[in-house]
Amino acid sequence: MIKIGVIGYGYWGPNLVRNIFEVADTQVVAVSDMREDRLQQVSSRYPSVEITTDHRRLLDNPEIDAIAIATPVSTHYDLAMQSLQSGKHVMVEKPMTSSSEQALCLIDEAARRKLTLMVDHTFVYTGAVRKIKQMVTAGRLGDIYYYDSTRINLGLFQRDVDVIWDLAVHDLAIMNFILPSSPCAVAATGINHISGGNENLAYITMFFEENMIAHLNVNWLSPVKVRRTLIGGSKQMIVYDDMEPSEKVKVYDKGITVNGTSDSLYRALVGYRSGDMFAPQLDVSEALKVEIQHFADCIRTGAEPITGGSAGLQVVRILESASLSMKQRGKLVQLAPDVLTVGRGA
Amino acid sequence: MIKIGVIGYGYWGPNLVRNIFEVADTQVVAVSDMREDRLQQVSSRYPSVEITTDHRRLLDNPEIDAIAIATPVSTHYDLAMQSLQSGKHVMVEKPMTSSSEQALCLIDEAARRKLTLMVDHTFVYTGAVRKIKQMVTAGRLGDIYYYDSTRINLGLFQRDVDVIWDLAVHDLAIMNFILPSSPCAVAATGINHISGGNENLAYITMFFEENMIAHLNVNWLSPVKVRRTLIGGSKQMIVYDDMEPSEKVKVYDKGITVNGTSDSLYRALVGYRSGDMFAPQLDVSEALKVEIQHFADCIRTGAEPITGGSAGLQVVRILESASLSMKQRGKLVQLAPDVLTVGRGA
Amino acid sequence: MIKIGVIGYGYWGPNLVRNIFEVADTQVVAVSDMREDRLQQVSSRYPSVEITTDHRRLLDNPEIDAIAIATPVSTHYDLAMQSLQSGKHVMVEKPMTSSSEQALCLIDEAARRKLTLMVDHTFVYTGAVRKIKQMVTAGRLGDIYYYDSTRINLGLFQRDVDVIWDLAVHDLAIMNFILPSSPCAVAATGINHISGGNENLAYITMFFEENMIAHLNVNWLSPVKVRRTLIGGSKQMIVYDDMEPSEKVKVYDKGITVNGTSDSLYRALVGYRSGDMFAPQLDVSEALKVEIQHFADCIRTGAEPITGGSAGLQVVRILESASLSMKQRGKLVQLAPDVLTVGRGA
Amino acid sequence: MIKIGVIGYGYWGPNLVRNIFEVADTQVVAVSDMREDRLQQVSSRYPSVEITTDHRRLLDNPEIDAIAIATPVSTHYDLAMQSLQSGKHVMVEKPMTSSSEQALCLIDEAARRKLTLMVDHTFVYTGAVRKIKQMVTAGRLGDIYYYDSTRINLGLFQRDVDVIWDLAVHDLAIMNFILPSSPCAVAATGINHISGGNENLAYITMFFEENMIAHLNVNWLSPVKVRRTLIGGSKQMIVYDDMEPSEKVKVYDKGITVNGTSDSLYRALVGYRSGDMFAPQLDVSEALKVEIQHFADCIRTGAEPITGGSAGLQVVRILESASLSMKQRGKLVQLAPDVLTVGRGA
Repeated sequence: MIKIGVIGYGYWGPNLVRNIFEVADTQVVAVSDMREDRLQQVSSRYPSVEITTDHRRLLDNPEIDAIAIATPVSTHYDLAMQSLQSGKHVMVEKPMTSSSEQALCLIDEAARRKLTLMVDHTFVYTGAVRKIKQMVTAGRLGDIYYYDSTRINLGLFQRDVDVIWDLAVHDLAIMNFILPSSPCAVAATGINHISGGNENLAYITMFFEENMIAHLNVNWLSPVKVRRTLIGGSKQMIVYDDMEPSEKVKVYDKGITVNGTSDSLYRALVGYRSGDMFAPQLDVSEALKVEIQHFADCIRTGAEPITGGSAGLQVVRILESASLSMKQRGKLVQLAPDVLTVGRGA
Repeated sequence: MIKIGVIGYGYWGPNLVRNIFEVADTQVVAVSDMREDRLQQVSSRYPSVEITTDHRRLLDNPEIDAIAIATPVSTHYDLAMQSLQSGKHVMVEKPMTSSSEQALCLIDEAARRKLTLMVDHTFVYTGAVRKIKQMVTAGRLGDIYYYDSTRINLGLFQRDVDVIWDLAVHDLAIMNFILPSSPCAVAATGINHISGGNENLAYITMFFEENMIAHLNVNWLSPVKVRRTLIGGSKQMIVYDDMEPSEKVKVYDKGITVNGTSDSLYRALVGYRSGDMFAPQLDVSEALKVEIQHFADCIRTGAEPITGGSAGLQVVRILESASLSMKQRGKLVQLAPDVLTVGRGA
Repeated sequence: MIKIGVIGYGYWGPNLVRNIFEVADTQVVAVSDMREDRLQQVSSRYPSVEITTDHRRLLDNPEIDAIAIATPVSTHYDLAMQSLQSGKHVMVEKPMTSSSEQALCLIDEAARRKLTLMVDHTFVYTGAVRKIKQMVTAGRLGDIYYYDSTRINLGLFQRDVDVIWDLAVHDLAIMNFILPSSPCAVAATGINHISGGNENLAYITMFFEENMIAHLNVNWLSPVKVRRTLIGGSKQMIVYDDMEPSEKVKVYDKGITVNGTSDSLYRALVGYRSGDMFAPQLDVSEALKVEIQHFADCIRTGAEPITGGSAGLQVVRILESASLSMKQRGKLVQLAPDVLTVGRGA
Repeated sequence: MIKIGVIGYGYWGPNLVRNIFEVADTQVVAVSDMREDRLQQVSSRYPSVEITTDHRRLLDNPEIDAIAIATPVSTHYDLAMQSLQSGKHVMVEKPMTSSSEQALCLIDEAARRKLTLMVDHTFVYTGAVRKIKQMVTAGRLGDIYYYDSTRINLGLFQRDVDVIWDLAVHDLAIMNFILPSSPCAVAATGINHISGGNENLAYITMFFEENMIAHLNVNWLSPVKVRRTLIGGSKQMIVYDDMEPSEKVKVYDKGITVNGTSDSLYRALVGYRSGDMFAPQLDVSEALKVEIQHFADCIRTGAEPITGGSAGLQVVRILESASLSMKQRGKLVQLAPDVLTVGRGA
């Protein structure tokens, strides 16, 4: 039984606690939050759980094996670092940290102490995303041509982060999990409609070494909720629509075939394919439960989590670059060649 | 009765001919096309119409008042200029020309000869777009925050133009008609997946002097057809979905209200509104018929068409800038202050 | 504070318990279920709640004011009667009882003892149904022409009831709440595909004294889930689609206008109206919470609940008649003139 | 080249003429209609076609091989009989005749004269329906459990026929084509909202010798247009939605499996399957063109058309029985054992 302390019982904390209880191998021992009324909610639902306004009590508790952190982004680094330094395994909300420097420090600390460091990229553990990953890895799509995602709704205007750090973080976590390579440059544009606020809608283009492109459209000010990703390949194409109640992933036998390169015969070279569509059955297990089970397994075996520190860092690096590009109206920002391999090897 | 000669009987020409016959005041006298088989089709359906492979026979025909041009973009300028120089009124397919220089020359020539010059921005004449324009002009949306359009499908890979000139041209024509101001800068990204071809998917961000942004997502390589535009305003928001069979325009009483600027009270400042949605009844007249009637009216009265030369030029200027930006991976391209006012005044 | 005992902790019981705790004026004191493992679930989540396998301990507990019954239909009558005879107010799952005779007995018993008897017709308390009721009552639809509902999905084949008692019960509860009058005759057809089972799909037509008709399509063997009701009126028409995430109720300014009765001018007499559609904002409070608050209010004031015994009886009477008609392949079954008024007056 | 005369140039006639011209082997020689303005439309579009207000001129024209009849239902029998008696092959609009007696007479006359008699059940020739037929015939669905169709919209209130003869006729034509057997009894209900008019909405249940049921929901007074058919089978289930722009046919690997008959183990006997969905690519040829080609082929070879006289009769027999049942509020009407086999054998 892995005993877990949870820091932060706001929007996401209750989901963490509920799922930790549902996984057979894990258990919540204590919850900390600075708000007394949130702690009262913990007590009324889970009277056996210890509550405290001081998160250090969790770190000092020798009974606790791991800490789950569900607090605002700006606090992730400090809380995660303190937890690691107290010898606890860590699962931290996305985005992992406010900067890639911080992320690198956490990765180093966890590696040095041989502790599990995991980032809560929940979508990666959904049946839909796992099915897509499987199809891409099996080569079903052929060469990937593009990844194009729209994630918009009337969302909470956040004070401390812009819409990229709030919404695009989901897409980047999914994209990095699914695609075989990482972007080499980013160009982002966006706008802020509130005096003194952060950008509330943004468009992010990512370039790759391969002949592939990715684009994200994120918006806190849309009257309709859209969660749709298109992945175009040379053999098949996928539409992943998370708002669909049942058929979230549709695979199309549609596309073009290119039969040569001669310019003069251009028209003859591009053939169009139109075929069947199919929607695979998806595992409907709750993603967060699958994820917490994986966290427990990694703690036990010492294996690197699917969404470990390096996955978290990779996402933070793109977030940083995108925000930087956006401040300069789409100026191209290069992403350094993947230093993560080093991190992973350490 | 305004007598019209049609140059080009490929994809769009048949629609022009059919609608010219349906408008009471207009009539097709002659059609030219370089392909004999296309001309045979004209004859079998409209035996009274003169056919020819030489478009000059139309220009020389004193009976003909106006020329409608439905040929590839690269020929628009020459054919339109010859038509004007032959004293004919002109309706030319979109995009108006291959460059803004050419567009300016046509505007000058038409103005000098007091001839009507119109660009076939068909969508502007649909019931949906006219209704949206009406609501925006009446101030129903409040301040416009953004214009965000997606126009994707498995489309014909064209040899002579990129996807921006093929698909984004529709959005730009609609956007320029609806919005009260014009963009001042453009940043575009895109990719080409065919050796020797043009970009087949592209993303275009447009900046405005006001605190407003516009974005277009165009793609020839999508497994699904999407035609959706969101227009966000401070009072109301519109979703225009051209794939909907009946309720193409939906108006949402949703949004945020900003109650001040004090940073320290940030959270309290942004309020969220959620309200009714309504879908106005739309005029279902065929847009092209409405447009040809308007062309006839302008010829008769000498009035500037809604989609006259300056509207066509404005669209071409943005297309040029977007393609230029795309070649440099999103580098910002400034659009000169609106010289069109001069053009219009002339 | 109204103290409630809950009998039955299967599929619906947990929702009852959770919502009773969320309503400020009500509290769960004890839960009974014959399955020990279900009771363990109660304890782990709500350690303060007494658990027992003997529901009589709830009836004998003088601290308990009211009993909520969430057990199979065949047990409703006995448990509700025992509860009333123990002096407890009662909220019973739908359908109220297995027969209208039983329902009448419960109504009498509750009236005699001046206890509140309520049936859990949950949908009546949703924002969508309350909004529709409001529009119908305000005369917005004009004369009601028809009520047409489809409620199909791959559902659990039940052993003790047919699909009418499982699914149509929802529609009948909603219909009786919304419509100004009750049906006078029923014709139902259906089929059973399982040897020894009950009908798993059924079609029910209901006739009214007025020139109005109602029809229900219910099916446990559909590959897709549909929850859609059309209500046609002389002035406006409503489509209520419970599968829509946000715009569940759409009101159409569409219909016909009849301008006379002369047969010879028939064609001229029917005019067609086409107009705007609007989707009103709906209260998104959880229906069951609203309902439990209403139960508490009725207990306190002695008022008849919106979904009291007579509403429950009315639904059971139609269910009985529909099943009877279905056994005879659609033979018309008359519903007696509304004896409920008597019941209500008592 | 088969030369065709068309009687009736109202709503459907223009589609017939256009498609007869598009089929290589067929040609329109003459069109008759009692309205001069309709004939003018023929002339302006097809100047080579002879026009007349007297349909007998077509029957007397020795050049004409076949007659296509697109007039009101009440005239079908007389016009078709006259055409056959003039030695012409006949294609008549659906429904074939106003009564099954009339239909039988036409079948006899055509058989005696060895002429082709075909009914224009257009939907049978769509890519969607042909694909479904193919899957059903191949046994992909297993045993058919039910056929359930909804065909509703704000439709023209017709003076001479009720909604069953106007809308259900489509479903019956499709159903008879797809299903391996014919219904043995019908129960229908409906209502008329216009004084002196016909029923404008109706519900039809059909029983079969096998353990299968069919139901149609047709309505001229719906604010939304629905065209959806569910076909449930023991192995797979189909949803055919004709309003979908591209994926009209969806096949679901969903259903139940029955593992025995023992009552006491009932719950264990019904297993639930949930699996992939797939949407086959469909032939998008215009159905009417496919159908006219088939008519020409049958004339040439003497083969019985897929939608020949006996298919037309079968549909008329069910329409008759349904209208009869509807007049008696759902009274069951038996359909005689399939006398058509006799007709076919003749």
